[in-house]
Amino acid sequence: MTQLEQARKGIITPEMRAVAEAEGVAAEALLASVAAGEAVIPYNPVRQRRAAGIGKGLATKVNANIGTSEAYPDIEKELVKLEIAVKAGADAVMDLSTGGDINMSRRRILERSPVMVGTVPMYQATVEAMESKGSMLAMTADDLFGVIEQHAREGVDFITVHCGLTLESIQRLTREGRVTDIVSRGGSFLTGWMLHHDMDNPLYTQYDRLLEIARKYDITLSLGDGLRPGCLADATDRAQVQELIILGELVQRAWEQGVQVMVEGPGHVPMDQIEANILLQKRLCQGTPFYVLGPLVTDIAPGYDHITSAIGGAIAAAAGADFLCYVTPAEHLGLPDAADVKDGVIAAKIAAHAADIVKNVKGARERDRKMAEARKALDWEAQIALSIDPERSLKYRSSKNRDTEEACTMCGKYCAMKIVSQYLGSPRQEC
Amino acid sequence: MTQLEQARKGIITPEMRAVAEAEGVAAEALLASVAAGEAVIPYNPVRQRRAAGIGKGLATKVNANIGTSEAYPDIEKELVKLEIAVKAGADAVMDLSTGGDINMSRRRILERSPVMVGTVPMYQATVEAMESKGSMLAMTADDLFGVIEQHAREGVDFITVHCGLTLESIQRLTREGRVTDIVSRGGSFLTGWMLHHDMDNPLYTQYDRLLEIARKYDITLSLGDGLRPGCLADATDRAQVQELIILGELVQRAWEQGVQVMVEGPGHVPMDQIEANILLQKRLCQGTPFYVLGPLVTDIAPGYDHITSAIGGAIAAAAGADFLCYVTPAEHLGLPDAADVKDGVIAAKIAAHAADIVKNVKGARERDRKMAEARKALDWEAQIALSIDPERSLKYRSSKNRDTEEACTMCGKYCAMKIVSQYLGSPRQEC
Repeated sequence: MTQLEQARKGIITPEMRAVAEAEGVAAEALLASVAAGEAVIPYNPVRQRRAAGIGKGLATKVNANIGTSEAYPDIEKELVKLEIAVKAGADAVMDLSTGGDINMSRRRILERSPVMVGTVPMYQATVEAMESKGSMLAMTADDLFGVIEQHAREGVDFITVHCGLTLESIQRLTREGRVTDIVSRGGSFLTGWMLHHDMDNPLYTQYDRLLEIARKYDITLSLGDGLRPGCLADATDRAQVQELIILGELVQRAWEQGVQVMVEGPGHVPMDQIEANILLQKRLCQGTPFYVLGPLVTDIAPGYDHITSAIGGAIAAAAGADFLCYVTPAEHLGLPDAADVKDGVIAAKIAAHAADIVKNVKGARERDRKMAEARKALDWEAQIALSIDPERSLKYRSSKNRDTEEACTMCGKYCAMKIVSQYLGSPRQEC
Repeated sequence: MTQLEQARKGIITPEMRAVAEAEGVAAEALLASVAAGEAVIPYNPVRQRRAAGIGKGLATKVNANIGTSEAYPDIEKELVKLEIAVKAGADAVMDLSTGGDINMSRRRILERSPVMVGTVPMYQATVEAMESKGSMLAMTADDLFGVIEQHAREGVDFITVHCGLTLESIQRLTREGRVTDIVSRGGSFLTGWMLHHDMDNPLYTQYDRLLEIARKYDITLSLGDGLRPGCLADATDRAQVQELIILGELVQRAWEQGVQVMVEGPGHVPMDQIEANILLQKRLCQGTPFYVLGPLVTDIAPGYDHITSAIGGAIAAAAGADFLCYVTPAEHLGLPDAADVKDGVIAAKIAAHAADIVKNVKGARERDRKMAEARKALDWEAQIALSIDPERSLKYRSSKNRDTEEACTMCGKYCAMKIVSQYLGSPRQEC
């Protein structure tokens, strides 16, 4: 039985118990959210690790994409990124390998990762079709489902599947016109395949086959948004919303089969459309967890898209998004290196935490309060320990200040905290 | 006559004309905003430079704080920061020097800066009192007004003056209690001074004297928020709002004397209180331009506060804030170096631009659209030229990719743009 099926029967699984404990919430409340499909526990029983949950009442989670590419096929480098991502606080990693030995890459990542692992099986199916048959168009539905089952069998916890990308939604896209058309890699492969063969998406037409695999292994489906906008001008257009409507229908069908499911979202979205996007997804997909990539709030900042997506991600999460896919400074420019991965994870964690404060996630506000108290007390050790990246705080602090200084070099003897302490007997100063 | 007085008489000054032209708006519309006090042109006629405006209908502006400190008294380093800040897009700099020869530092910055320059005269008055009289408490009102007039005479365009910090608001603060009390440097000096002497703030009690100087030199007053919250837990408390009410009254009095004025705001604010803060300021201060420091949306990210403040700044600006003071990664840890200054300016510029898109600022959306078109066309030269930091984009692009590659190493031959172009004849592809 899947976590969803067990929750519906009122069974609190060991995974639910672990998640509830880690989040400081009641197991019964989590069980209710899982039973309603409003939270998922992507936990493939094949692989033993600590379970984590995504969705209602839980802390906003962060995913880091790693994986080889044609130009960088070395898995060892990706394993370093895995380690850095997890150390920086990533709650999940996705292996998006398309270069070198893809099976080996995934197995190594599954073996090493202490956090949940997701994949996009379509990538491997495409690469294999190119390599063994000379063209990605030669991929068959059986090839694709074969890869999906292989990933499930080997312990992948969740997979991105672009099931809502249909000829109907592509027609709507071409009818309206777009500046950047399709920017999702999986979406572009499928679109090429569908238009070439004049056949609809096998992930849509054979969705029951997908559900059967997902149910068998309790692998969580992450319904991908192949038509997500690739620029602000394309955001929230008819193609995007059409696909979301179809995804809503597929969520319902997944639930009918006891399959855990979440839905992916944009992308590039102007600030004033983000909340509407979240509300729309939550309504059309009946409260299922929402996994957003970004959203990026401007197109013009390559090299800094961890910041553009931290802005969008914070707004999205505050409005109800449950899972943020990181965006690194290398986005739109090349494959991220280890430093980019760290920057990407930290920026997304900041966005997630800022949102958790206003979502009243357990413990979020308390952490900020402790930091404020440490600042008031000029307790640098505590400030460094409480910070999101103690290594970086310490490095800044020690490179810019002498150890013996109570204040910092920005204000020195003109430190407001020090001056005020002499005059204001704050009732909370002793905290 | 000040810009405000001239605007009221219907005179379009050369400065208004320059600002209107730079922003692509009608001079008449700008004149109306200046006349109503909803936009300011901080332009001290003593110093010849290109005028810029802040407020209604204009692009959101960004300020970078520079200046010497006790531990880093070298002005040459600050002049390098000035150059870097301006190159990164800063619309204003504030000289916050408290170390070395403060007068010389300011003069060098005024001489070099192509953008508007602001100061906090209170800092110099405090340092001089300490140096010449042995204690900051020995500062007199005459000392302070002397420094203010000196700054105005030498060409400073705007000054931060904490006029709304009164014994009444400090009483309200102590009555309620706070976690971090007072974190504004100017605010803490004044608080110490007031409590020690049991006298009210001379900037409040002798406000007319301040207005006289401001009017004489057409120096714009930036009414500082000495009681801004220094942590999320203190945000939007009674002390902060009390000070804002007083600032609203002072705005009205400035307008009565024909003095240009803006109001400063927080600080550290949870995401869900930012919009309310902006609305409150705009209402209590009758639409005067709002200059915010951050706001930082979490306390726990020292080393990354350019990101926490980009999140808050974008939300604030989208809600109506007009002027963002940058926050660098060094905030809370020490004096920023040149690299920190650049990171701080770029993060604030991203926030400002993301907000300008949704504020319908002239030209903001168009820039993103051009970038999207360059991406669709895989035109790397245009992408780099259109990006917020072309140097950094180019560095990323060239370090991660071979020159000959059309796509990038993230996707290589699996580039969505390339694949889709073969199948979808997008009507806009030729753009």
